[in-house]
Amino acid sequence: MKASRFFIGTLKEAPADAEIVSHKLMMRAGMIRRVAGGIYDYMPIGLRSVRKVEAIVREEMNRAGALELLMPAVQPAELWQESGRWEQYGPELLRFKDRHERDFVMGPTHEEVVTDIARREIKSYRQLPVNFYQIQTKFRDEIRPRFGVMRGREFIMKDAYSFDKDFDGLAESYRKMYEAYVRIFTRIGLEFRAVAADNGSIGGSGSHEFHVIADTGEDDIAYCPSSEFAANVEAADALPLIAQRAAPAEELKKTPTPGAAKCEAVAQLLNIPLEKTIKSIVLATENEGAEPTIWLLMLRGDHSLNDIKTGKLPGLKGYRFATEAEIIEWFGTPPGYLGPLNTKKPVRVIADRTVANMSDFVVGTNEVDYHTTGVNWGRDLPEPEVADIRNVVAGDPSPDGRGTLEICRGIEVGHVFQLGTKYSDSMGATFLDENGKPAPMQMGCYGIGVTRVLGAAIEQNFDDRGIIWPEAIAPFEVVICPMGYDRSDAVREQADKLYATLQQAGIDVILDDRGERPGVMFADWELIGVPHRIVIGDRGLKEGKLEYQGRRDAEATLLPVDEAADVVVGKVRAALGK
Amino acid sequence: MKASRFFIGTLKEAPADAEIVSHKLMMRAGMIRRVAGGIYDYMPIGLRSVRKVEAIVREEMNRAGALELLMPAVQPAELWQESGRWEQYGPELLRFKDRHERDFVMGPTHEEVVTDIARREIKSYRQLPVNFYQIQTKFRDEIRPRFGVMRGREFIMKDAYSFDKDFDGLAESYRKMYEAYVRIFTRIGLEFRAVAADNGSIGGSGSHEFHVIADTGEDDIAYCPSSEFAANVEAADALPLIAQRAAPAEELKKTPTPGAAKCEAVAQLLNIPLEKTIKSIVLATENEGAEPTIWLLMLRGDHSLNDIKTGKLPGLKGYRFATEAEIIEWFGTPPGYLGPLNTKKPVRVIADRTVANMSDFVVGTNEVDYHTTGVNWGRDLPEPEVADIRNVVAGDPSPDGRGTLEICRGIEVGHVFQLGTKYSDSMGATFLDENGKPAPMQMGCYGIGVTRVLGAAIEQNFDDRGIIWPEAIAPFEVVICPMGYDRSDAVREQADKLYATLQQAGIDVILDDRGERPGVMFADWELIGVPHRIVIGDRGLKEGKLEYQGRRDAEATLLPVDEAADVVVGKVRAALGK
Repeated sequence: MKASRFFIGTLKEAPADAEIVSHKLMMRAGMIRRVAGGIYDYMPIGLRSVRKVEAIVREEMNRAGALELLMPAVQPAELWQESGRWEQYGPELLRFKDRHERDFVMGPTHEEVVTDIARREIKSYRQLPVNFYQIQTKFRDEIRPRFGVMRGREFIMKDAYSFDKDFDGLAESYRKMYEAYVRIFTRIGLEFRAVAADNGSIGGSGSHEFHVIADTGEDDIAYCPSSEFAANVEAADALPLIAQRAAPAEELKKTPTPGAAKCEAVAQLLNIPLEKTIKSIVLATENEGAEPTIWLLMLRGDHSLNDIKTGKLPGLKGYRFATEAEIIEWFGTPPGYLGPLNTKKPVRVIADRTVANMSDFVVGTNEVDYHTTGVNWGRDLPEPEVADIRNVVAGDPSPDGRGTLEICRGIEVGHVFQLGTKYSDSMGATFLDENGKPAPMQMGCYGIGVTRVLGAAIEQNFDDRGIIWPEAIAPFEVVICPMGYDRSDAVREQADKLYATLQQAGIDVILDDRGERPGVMFADWELIGVPHRIVIGDRGLKEGKLEYQGRRDAEATLLPVDEAADVVVGKVRAALGK
Repeated sequence: MKASRFFIGTLKEAPADAEIVSHKLMMRAGMIRRVAGGIYDYMPIGLRSVRKVEAIVREEMNRAGALELLMPAVQPAELWQESGRWEQYGPELLRFKDRHERDFVMGPTHEEVVTDIARREIKSYRQLPVNFYQIQTKFRDEIRPRFGVMRGREFIMKDAYSFDKDFDGLAESYRKMYEAYVRIFTRIGLEFRAVAADNGSIGGSGSHEFHVIADTGEDDIAYCPSSEFAANVEAADALPLIAQRAAPAEELKKTPTPGAAKCEAVAQLLNIPLEKTIKSIVLATENEGAEPTIWLLMLRGDHSLNDIKTGKLPGLKGYRFATEAEIIEWFGTPPGYLGPLNTKKPVRVIADRTVANMSDFVVGTNEVDYHTTGVNWGRDLPEPEVADIRNVVAGDPSPDGRGTLEICRGIEVGHVFQLGTKYSDSMGATFLDENGKPAPMQMGCYGIGVTRVLGAAIEQNFDDRGIIWPEAIAPFEVVICPMGYDRSDAVREQADKLYATLQQAGIDVILDDRGERPGVMFADWELIGVPHRIVIGDRGLKEGKLEYQGRRDAEATLLPVDEAADVVVGKVRAALGK
């Protein structure tokens, strides 16, 4: 491509509504343009990257045996009524009526449509397994679209849906997709983690999120650098930090701690490690026609409550925090100095796994300005119910026993999910099994946010000059910047020759023949983020040299004219793993 | 692709709502499935053909210098209000509100969005010309969607929009698109015609429709087999069929024609050729505050009125047919025996070009049951106003003077259109010209109905066994049908070997390893329309032979096993023009 025949629309300033770096840079590089809130044009330079992501996704989905089809954007309400989501889905589901006053939705996802296909087309176990996927434009009416393509309303997704005759089949289909996703994000050139996600609220039985690692990510991820373990902080198992409980060494002692209601203040006041203190959290669950059950959850002073794990404990589904009145009624004191000793009315005590192995610890006394030190299970308190109720923190042991956890931030770009029979049950997608008996199909769903990948790639790869594209999804792999294309025959001839050579080698190259000044030219291509740049000027040519600079290189390297093409082709191929 | 890993869903019967052959065959071949009225799933086998059309379109658009981008499906109402089409467009424009009660439309076309891009991005004549295109899903809320993908509601279109600094530039952009379209439809392998369309109602200044020729087409096309001329029947110039008016030879004579109100009856009764009779058509145009003008249009008895040409004549814009009361008032008689002689009140007479050169013709006498024969211009009637007011018919001279017209039916699959400044004026898309003065951009728009092309291709290419795909858009180019893939080692080995050889040669081949009976296998692939079939069986292999049959061949040909691959590769490449 020659730049004079292309459309480049870089901007000096990002618009005011662009809050995050990928949004700013995609606007400034002219990749996207806003049409309405969360709705964008993909300009030619942006679409090139979109298409490269799509091509990689398509290749790997095909390699994994998935079959591409195309379902409609506009879906009849009847299907959503059958699945129950017509009622369940909130206002993010864009609903409208056609000219005949029939209800439709703009599809934010296609479980209903694909299940409708499966129940119509699949009659026998002999037709299973099958995995249908599409790369398609979706719409989700976000209440506050923002962050450019990261949280848009109209976006491109790859969504795949597997159908199996039994759970083993589903597990195998799921594994294939998991492996395809690993190949996809590896090929795209992103640092990522497959994260075991909490899936309690969606009703499936297995799920991983694929996160691109970036400081600006929305999600906290716990991962083990020395193993494959990664999970959302909310979902990661927190192991006991104390292997075995030590024998009591201190006497129980009521200690004045005036004004020290928080663990940190108590530790400072008593000059003890925070790890000796206990955080008491009081929850309530309703009992119809009777007073609520009051729960005391005990965490080590430096830990925090995990509400998802807590909500899954027997009896704690739908819990709430206790009111001040309840706390006074059960503990005889307002919040601040609460503890398990001498409660006014009985409470159910749950100790975090770590707390359960502690000894000689400090709790509130249920009396303002007093704590009790030297507390021990079994001696001063009955043995507690034990559960994992805390968030993991950096330094925790990895649940797989193969190292220590780190915490990082990630941007979710993919999701694989075992749906089981949720949709095949509600929509009647059954097949005849080997015995001629109807059985519901086991489904999985697998999404990749194609346009979101671009944003995530930028959040992971940028500097103060602009985007730094991984080769595989760069709008162009190489840019040739001739100094004086219109003035110097030598420069023009060399630039054209190199351009032709690189094109023949299958390199996606752009020749900047716009006649811009070098400063403008360099700034444009650094902003756009083309990974390899070659500068051709009369001065260098006199010595038979060109200038090469990788987008991450601090400075340029001189290359002999005759070797330049080989060097650059080698660099691009190496980066693409070819 | 091996069929056992693919998804084939052929049907014995088409659904009852499928009225035309392409709809029936696409359903039966399992290419599409209905989701709602005019809304379809493209199943894997159907999507393969869609993608092949898209790839050809994309290649030729790129070759023509157009730049691919992607505009959103969901568009804000504000843009349509600016262009005026928010009011003008009927209920085919699907309108809806988002969760914030803002108005949006599902784009049936993208003039507004692309003009919005142009006015934002293009500041100077130096950025022109530019041509943006996309391949994108559109929605048109047809009142009665039907005919499968031929008149669906959700469909895929390629739409391109050119921007030029002046009309010469537009003409050049238009020419490039015209030539690209010729290449596209030629490569797809369809018999087509570029048809000069009537464009009066849309307001542009130049337009061609690309029609696939098929007996089932909706449009009548006049074309000249010995030249490039083609036009909608409504738009084709009708030349005088009589070169020069002969001198009068008969006397004017009032002749009884009892009960013969129509030209055909008059000709039969008087035993004269229909070509001697005149059809009188009475029109009216309103005059504010005064009585209407009454027009008498004279056509040869065997011709028909062209209302588009008529409506363009001076004074006849917005004409209507005269009422019976008006006819009685102006002609002194009810409809049936009308003519230009002895009208009761003055009427404006317009003679068709052919009628103007007739002599000794027959007209009504304005008296029930009487005609007048031997009528001549100049002698019995003043010389008339002359105009082209008729539809051409087969046998007419081609307006380009290079042969005789034929009439055929066509299916519109593409449209190129010179918009001029319609949108750049209403939406303020101006640029600074060479003199620093703002000027409106000259626009063209260019559409191809990607999914419609599939329907049209089938309407042109089918038989009673199914679809006959042109190689370029067939879901597979070649099918290998082994007889006993699971039973015979020899058959399986030969089939696998041929499959591998064809794949290596770049042939899009499917191996039917499903284990179906030969009858089912052959019926499926004939229905699906794969253009080349190879049958491998033990009997043939014993003699070192395979069976080859082209989809249009009456019977199979035996090929030596070792030559089969070369022969088939040769046939596919020849068909693709490679």
